[in-house]
Amino acid sequence: MDFMKPDTVLDLNNIRQALIRMEETIVFALIERSQFYSSPSVYEPKKFIPNFEGSMLDWFLLQLEKIHSQVRRYEAPDESPFFPDDILPTILPSINYPKILADYSNEINVNDEIKKFYVHDIVPKISCKLGEQQENLGSVSTSDVECLQTISRRIHFGKFVAESKFQNDKENYIRMIKEKDVEGIERSITNKAVEDKILERLEIKAESYGIDPSLKFSQNKQSKVDPKVISQLYKDYIIPLTKKVEIDYLLRRLEDDF
Amino acid sequence: MDFMKPDTVLDLNNIRQALIRMEETIVFALIERSQFYSSPSVYEPKKFIPNFEGSMLDWFLLQLEKIHSQVRRYEAPDESPFFPDDILPTILPSINYPKILADYSNEINVNDEIKKFYVHDIVPKISCKLGEQQENLGSVSTSDVECLQTISRRIHFGKFVAESKFQNDKENYIRMIKEKDVEGIERSITNKAVEDKILERLEIKAESYGIDPSLKFSQNKQSKVDPKVISQLYKDYIIPLTKKVEIDYLLRRLEDDF
Repeated sequence: MDFMKPDTVLDLNNIRQALIRMEETIVFALIERSQFYSSPSVYEPKKFIPNFEGSMLDWFLLQLEKIHSQVRRYEAPDESPFFPDDILPTILPSINYPKILADYSNEINVNDEIKKFYVHDIVPKISCKLGEQQENLGSVSTSDVECLQTISRRIHFGKFVAESKFQNDKENYIRMIKEKDVEGIERSITNKAVEDKILERLEIKAESYGIDPSLKFSQNKQSKVDPKVISQLYKDYIIPLTKKVEIDYLLRRLEDDF
Repeated sequence: MDFMKPDTVLDLNNIRQALIRMEETIVFALIERSQFYSSPSVYEPKKFIPNFEGSMLDWFLLQLEKIHSQVRRYEAPDESPFFPDDILPTILPSINYPKILADYSNEINVNDEIKKFYVHDIVPKISCKLGEQQENLGSVSTSDVECLQTISRRIHFGKFVAESKFQNDKENYIRMIKEKDVEGIERSITNKAVEDKILERLEIKAESYGIDPSLKFSQNKQSKVDPKVISQLYKDYIIPLTKKVEIDYLLRRLEDDF
């Protein structure tokens, strides 16, 4: 994605390619996380860090976002911080991105929901074991951050899908937005055949990337992460939340006249 | 690896399994890095960060190591910082690891060499293009850190190999160490057949993980990273530097009597 060229970013073909490529990043990150125990105390508020209300994961995420913001991560239209109130100004010269999304787009942020389903539903399913090993809690947090950031980027990419659809069918969307026709908007952004294809492709990827190919003909060819868990993650969370982002973005689209 | 149980850590079979599993982490990290341009200014000292002598990558690595050290990353015997003089004390309770390696083992650190070959030889070969895009320099640094940390862990794992070999053949090693018989030590830790097997396995992994499996029968099945580059990385750098770590560790082994 070249965010300096708005036309290419809003080309649905390019968006689709970017989304497909993000599947690799997500599958790789989940496979890495699967090396560790579920580690519930990483997610427990006030457990480890003195004078800090959140969990160890929160603390870790927050510190990283402070660093990443200083090299302008959150200036990019495809990045959404988990702690938008605590990020720092960039120490690099700002990039003046051309306008691609509506001005309110930063206000659409479902990271709290992402953290919730990730911690409560995904972690126990992808961890190699329930329980924890004290000496791996740092590695767990590092791994979790990778998973969360990449899932967050995937879901908030819905904003580009939404803007692209709006641009391509303005008249229709303006009518639906004015009528607050949420169902109509949802129908317009839903393509069951495409969704089924995504789920199918994900299982193939999870299997291909999760099995050591040099063990293909041995008895030990167990997949590192259950491919069904990855397609379920998309079905239950990533696809519905992407749609939520798209709908939330579209419903406010008349606030910004560009 | 369960560092609370020294016997299991020094079991060569377990070490081998851990090294094989690290291949995935390395290949995944390189594939992620390959999405971006080579981005030479990330590696240029004093280019971006005011009042900082190093490069943007150095700054980024340093900030991360400060955070990671606070959740005790560098207490672990398998982790070696790139900025050992600047890491911070842990804010979590310390883990009292049982003694597995000699006391001087932290002094054996080849991270400067790792950064050098990575930046100069690997980055240009795995990047999707030479040149750079200003808006991706942060992503490049994040990706580079993953690659560097995982390659560093792989190479410094040689310390466990060395300790294990020493334990299993003390008499012979003590003699070679006393005679400063570097060639003898090198011979004793070299197994050409195993090395060839590693290189072969890596090409298979790079290919399996670098090609979208849902495109297997399409014309577009280009691998994200050239598998030859990954096996070459092992042949030219990872395997020789691991041996250097092993030899450096063994040559000093009589300093510590345990």
